[in-house]
Amino acid sequence: MNTTHNRPLILVTNDDGVFSKGILALTEAVLPFGDVVVVAPDKPQSGMGHAVTINNILKLHPVKYDLPVSAAYSCSGTPVDCVKLAIYKVMHRKPDLVVSGINHGSNSSINVIYSGTMSAALEGAVEGIPSIGFSLLDHSADADFEASKQVVATLVEAALSKGIPEGVCLNVNIPKAIPSAIAGIRICHQAKGYWEDNFDVRTDPYGKPYYWLTGEFKLMDEGLDTDEIALAAGYVSVVPVHFDLTAYQAMEKLKQWNL
Amino acid sequence: MNTTHNRPLILVTNDDGVFSKGILALTEAVLPFGDVVVVAPDKPQSGMGHAVTINNILKLHPVKYDLPVSAAYSCSGTPVDCVKLAIYKVMHRKPDLVVSGINHGSNSSINVIYSGTMSAALEGAVEGIPSIGFSLLDHSADADFEASKQVVATLVEAALSKGIPEGVCLNVNIPKAIPSAIAGIRICHQAKGYWEDNFDVRTDPYGKPYYWLTGEFKLMDEGLDTDEIALAAGYVSVVPVHFDLTAYQAMEKLKQWNL
Repeated sequence: MNTTHNRPLILVTNDDGVFSKGILALTEAVLPFGDVVVVAPDKPQSGMGHAVTINNILKLHPVKYDLPVSAAYSCSGTPVDCVKLAIYKVMHRKPDLVVSGINHGSNSSINVIYSGTMSAALEGAVEGIPSIGFSLLDHSADADFEASKQVVATLVEAALSKGIPEGVCLNVNIPKAIPSAIAGIRICHQAKGYWEDNFDVRTDPYGKPYYWLTGEFKLMDEGLDTDEIALAAGYVSVVPVHFDLTAYQAMEKLKQWNL
Repeated sequence: MNTTHNRPLILVTNDDGVFSKGILALTEAVLPFGDVVVVAPDKPQSGMGHAVTINNILKLHPVKYDLPVSAAYSCSGTPVDCVKLAIYKVMHRKPDLVVSGINHGSNSSINVIYSGTMSAALEGAVEGIPSIGFSLLDHSADADFEASKQVVATLVEAALSKGIPEGVCLNVNIPKAIPSAIAGIRICHQAKGYWEDNFDVRTDPYGKPYYWLTGEFKLMDEGLDTDEIALAAGYVSVVPVHFDLTAYQAMEKLKQWNL
């Protein structure tokens, strides 16, 4: 791995796969800021959440990137596996920044908990590394990442110069728009919402039923400083995300159970 | 599905698989409290986090349980898939309680974010259902669940009579001990900690390297009211867990970036 010692070391990963358009855009956008190593899944891993591979082996495979990266690998595992393998078996040290994405599709609101993109960023935070996940509100494989690349540059520069609070990563969602139509960047909290599931039931050639998970997002939050509101108004949403899931305000109520 | 209308409807799931000893113990323990439906993975799904299956189909298969449950199914998907399919395609309504486990192994501290057991419970909370995940600090397949069954009964009775705060599920970890050696039950917060990964590198029969994820848990928390401290003192730990990952205290700092 060919890196210099005076530039930040940046790990790039995602959940859409090592050759998706979004990760290529992200890699391009961060190259001016440091030495870049890519370790990303060898196949789509959307919706993998914080899954880790403990019942199977993991493989790493060098891949050819048409960008001046220090190293690039595909990994047979999940996005979180990619971060772990990158740190402990590719870079042999913690990078100065982990960036994940750019995801093809939103990771705002409750999507954060299902998202492989954001779980990779959260794993970076667990490891004590400043980490950012980027997502564009456009699912298409050939989505336009021009505005997103500018957002990446702005946030990576800020993160490297000002530092992300410890134990926190950033969940950045970007509206589908040309650069001049982006209204700005807003610091938000995660909107309360959920997916009303609607399974598509089909019958296999042998007469047995099977199911495809589909659904409709339901926003349950009337707050004005949520990621959903910011995105709807044309702003980039930035939510600081942490891995302490404790609902502190519920602790007192539970203590009254007198168990 | 044979259920009565005046008793609570309880969904039982896990991540170790539908016939693991832990889920049979959990099912037995909750049967006195309501009509029970089991929907659990057809294979081990430990470490699956909040993964959902969106790139593949899902299957449900009725299984025979030697316990008086209303219905029992194995599911080809993740623990979160099980909860979604159970609600929308098996029970056709939200149950009054979701219980997950009893996991063979701890889900205290940072393990909560990797855990399929706890992700199933968290999915219940996302759906607005009172939900509890149970884990025993014993990985062995034939672990002794006697003390755990008493803990389940105590907590399920309290949850059904007193109600779990909305949007919160409980992460319950149980020390490996005989019932009389359990010191009590403590309401705690999630201890700060992480896994220092240590990949076991091997060579396949064709000369290529592959990796097994292993590691050592590192506690980084000096607090006294954490789950780790409670468990070390012989107490059952109960952490209220929520799905709003926003690090609210970091929002002000980020606003000072003036993006």
